[in-house]
Amino acid sequence: MNELRIFTPATIANISCGFDVLGLALDTVGDEMTIRKVKKKGIRITKITGQNIPTETHKNVAGVAALALLSEIECDFGFEIEINKKIKPGSGIGSSAASSAGVVWAINELLHKPFNTIDLVRFAMEGERLATGVAHADNVAPALFGGFTLVRSYEPLDIISIHTPNELYATIIHPQIEVKTADARNILKTTVSLKDAIKQWGNVGGLISGLYTEDYDLIGRSLEDHIVEPIRSILIPAFNLVKQQSLLAGALGCGISGSGPSIFALSKGKKTALKVAKSMKLVYDEIAIDYDIHVSKVNKQGIKIL
Amino acid sequence: MNELRIFTPATIANISCGFDVLGLALDTVGDEMTIRKVKKKGIRITKITGQNIPTETHKNVAGVAALALLSEIECDFGFEIEINKKIKPGSGIGSSAASSAGVVWAINELLHKPFNTIDLVRFAMEGERLATGVAHADNVAPALFGGFTLVRSYEPLDIISIHTPNELYATIIHPQIEVKTADARNILKTTVSLKDAIKQWGNVGGLISGLYTEDYDLIGRSLEDHIVEPIRSILIPAFNLVKQQSLLAGALGCGISGSGPSIFALSKGKKTALKVAKSMKLVYDEIAIDYDIHVSKVNKQGIKIL
Repeated sequence: MNELRIFTPATIANISCGFDVLGLALDTVGDEMTIRKVKKKGIRITKITGQNIPTETHKNVAGVAALALLSEIECDFGFEIEINKKIKPGSGIGSSAASSAGVVWAINELLHKPFNTIDLVRFAMEGERLATGVAHADNVAPALFGGFTLVRSYEPLDIISIHTPNELYATIIHPQIEVKTADARNILKTTVSLKDAIKQWGNVGGLISGLYTEDYDLIGRSLEDHIVEPIRSILIPAFNLVKQQSLLAGALGCGISGSGPSIFALSKGKKTALKVAKSMKLVYDEIAIDYDIHVSKVNKQGIKIL
Repeated sequence: MNELRIFTPATIANISCGFDVLGLALDTVGDEMTIRKVKKKGIRITKITGQNIPTETHKNVAGVAALALLSEIECDFGFEIEINKKIKPGSGIGSSAASSAGVVWAINELLHKPFNTIDLVRFAMEGERLATGVAHADNVAPALFGGFTLVRSYEPLDIISIHTPNELYATIIHPQIEVKTADARNILKTTVSLKDAIKQWGNVGGLISGLYTEDYDLIGRSLEDHIVEPIRSILIPAFNLVKQQSLLAGALGCGISGSGPSIFALSKGKKTALKVAKSMKLVYDEIAIDYDIHVSKVNKQGIKIL
């Protein structure tokens, strides 16, 4: 096997109460990539379609992630990367993470798996460092593990794969506005009240418990964010109305995807997720904001060979 | 059935990262109570042994909890309560909670269960209000539900019973000093850094996940408290040394029980829990601090009929 064509998923990070620790992978939104083993050493990006992003290896998140992997293994050959970029950068659903995770996963397969998934997360995080300045794991982890993942700790890196119920669907609406990650970060306070923090970890406990027991009501009750959402949501047009309408349409919960501007809702079953999509669209149609919208089952597998 | 004799367990609240939300019930430490249905209406405490605590119904936590229950049901008879108080008040292992939970559980049984367990938690919380000024649920919930419990939210009251692995044992050492709950509360800061809060809810997620998957290593890695323990532990003699020695003896994790002064450790298996007890004792023997020590399996059942 000298070539792999893969689907590498978009992801939702910062799932409500799980700010900075909880993410999930999507099934119907993601990049397509082809990774080819070639004689010439090193990493080359040979083709990019879909989006206008850098092709220089050192400036491309997939290139940087691939180099991080190669720096830890002797390799007397190299790899070519083709990216069909279907996730818009800046959308808040892990565009850079999908490419970073995809490339290291595929190279690891082509090398007959010398690295474990935690290693791959570590390499892909270097792509995130290039994209955002911070080597965070909350998008690359679900892309690589699939399903829900928890980044329990960075030092040491400890990623927990969380049981994911079968009937969980995500609806994501991406208003076509730009929220700079730096702005979304700077707007946050560096301290929080102990009272709110306790509510937040109570909800994290409830959410994880709900996922293991497949208790959709508990998942819904726990999808609350007392700390980040009240602040960041002011950067997203009509966030409160979108959320309100999603819940009225039957969503279990609704929050900001990543650092926005995308808004996600989780629902039990595809039918409800589609109803939620309709109600989200209505809000943005009313105030004439352009958007992309996605409905996807939570992807338990992660990256897939096409 | 007009009379019940019960064992009502001591509990560990504030389990490391789960400050204010996570508790567990013990198996070998608890109060014994006899609750008797009598013709005369109302609640009377007829006998207290073991500790010197108030017998007036309104001044006794069990009395107050029982009255809270009776206020929500028509009852043309009453109850007598005998308490054999085996848990020392002020020890940090839920002394008041055991009596409050026990009495409402037993009365509910004698009334053929008109109330659900959440109702019973609500009534027992009134005992906690009398004891500490705050109607908290983190000790009464595990006493009533058994095993590990999560207080996800107070408004509305939402208690989640968490899967409890079979081989989990607790070791608790109670140094014979007084830490006033008010002091333990006042010493806390009202704000925390967002960075520490994120670590904390990452660990809560890891701990809950470890409990469901019976991953003892993950439970151990997650038993960290970046927020409360560093502050409160200064009120407890040789806390750091006791913790260090417990971990060296094989404990999965170690922290402050409730608001102290008791220190708990969790271990996989009784053998390790006994080894941990030995190592804890050695520390206090060395510095001549009196103590009680307990080793107990985590009690999955909660209150039991004797």
